Amino acid sequence: MEKDKTTEIDVSVDCVLFGFDGEELKVLLIEQKNPADGSLSKEQLQMALPGNLVDTEESLDDSAARVLYELTSLDGIYLKQFYTFGDPDRVRGLKDQEWLRNFRAHPERRVITVAYYSLVKMDEYQPQASSFAGEAKWVEINAVPQLAFDHNEIVDQGLAALREELTTKHIGFELLPEKFTLSQLQLLYEVILDKKLDKRNFRKNIKKMDQVIPLDEKQKGVLHKPAQLFRFERDENEEI
Amino acid sequence: MEKDKTTEIDVSVDCVLFGFDGEELKVLLIEQKNPADGSLSKEQLQMALPGNLVDTEESLDDSAARVLYELTSLDGIYLKQFYTFGDPDRVRGLKDQEWLRNFRAHPERRVITVAYYSLVKMDEYQPQASSFAGEAKWVEINAVPQLAFDHNEIVDQGLAALREELTTKHIGFELLPEKFTLSQLQLLYEVILDKKLDKRNFRKNIKKMDQVIPLDEKQKGVLHKPAQLFRFERDENEEI
Repeated sequence: MEKDKTTEIDVSVDCVLFGFDGEELKVLLIEQKNPADGSLSKEQLQMALPGNLVDTEESLDDSAARVLYELTSLDGIYLKQFYTFGDPDRVRGLKDQEWLRNFRAHPERRVITVAYYSLVKMDEYQPQASSFAGEAKWVEINAVPQLAFDHNEIVDQGLAALREELTTKHIGFELLPEKFTLSQLQLLYEVILDKKLDKRNFRKNIKKMDQVIPLDEKQKGVLHKPAQLFRFERDENEEI
Repeated sequence: MEKDKTTEIDVSVDCVLFGFDGEELKVLLIEQKNPADGSLSKEQLQMALPGNLVDTEESLDDSAARVLYELTSLDGIYLKQFYTFGDPDRVRGLKDQEWLRNFRAHPERRVITVAYYSLVKMDEYQPQASSFAGEAKWVEINAVPQLAFDHNEIVDQGLAALREELTTKHIGFELLPEKFTLSQLQLLYEVILDKKLDKRNFRKNIKKMDQVIPLDEKQKGVLHKPAQLFRFERDENEEI
């Protein structure tokens, strides 16, 4: 074991922030900013996830919150770590290197990134670009363009993590109104899973869930026949 | 954005290898080796998870497999990444620093570690210490001593990940014989979840699982009344 062992690796965080507005699932993206000398053309700048290097003495969770805030002005969002991406070539695309040469001391150096995600009610969060983001905006999940670095893969894996938690931990319920109809609930599942679900099967499965509690109350102020309302009560002791 | 931005952070991998022998759940630990000059006392050496720094141009998955092999001589094990630990002080305990000063160019430097886990049939894997491991052995999960760095926390979170996958993805079945009894299955769950399960409830829940298929066959060569045998058939399309 050689005593001079160390690693020449940079470490970053990236945030996959999903937003739901009752109808669509979107993801928050930034547009890379031109360096101060304006040396990059519009074509050389890419869309990307909000992300940046970890400060030397900062925890990973703190880093994710700071970076999201610095780039998009959003804060107070619970971010969950889901995977660390470590392909040695993940920042070595041509455009990636052009951009990094303007912002990094060691643009050629490998970067390992710890990825976080969250799911929020989109209308509660209006992102505003700052720091090295030229723009920050919600993009519909099926319209995500080619992104910088390996960020398309990070979005895909973030979406897989979200779907997993939707079905095993029922995390989507926070996005519904406190009292919701089964149609609203089904739409949430359909949008996040990106597929149509059979209405009868869906309702049968939901009825098996002790946490979805039928209320003695119906929708008000709708033109169609008012549907029954339900509420969600989290049960912390789920097991086989 | 300052152009000289970089990080002075080392990156490592750690492996939490769980073993099941039909009765007990154990975890593979190494004992830290004395440096060549023998300068550390027995009391200064600690038990730890197999782990080491990532090589500069190596993927994280490859690194985990290499490190596990170098320290314990085990290979061919599917390791799954489950969490990255990034507390800035995680390698700065007194004993940790004493040991690192003998093996690292920058012992004081922060280390972020990407943690992997796996679950294997214990009797198929006989670890042998090599590299800087003084010893490598299976330790019963409830008898894990105080470990180096934050490795107790990593074991705990690895165990949580294992339990999660046991109940949501049924990963434990690979550890049973191809044809198994419900008692064998219940014991597997009880050992990994570390609690007694009610026999009737357990059987009721297992019967709901399409993947557990009853066979027209009973145990042979047992002294007690032979129990019915079952087999497991994985279903890739599980959803709500």
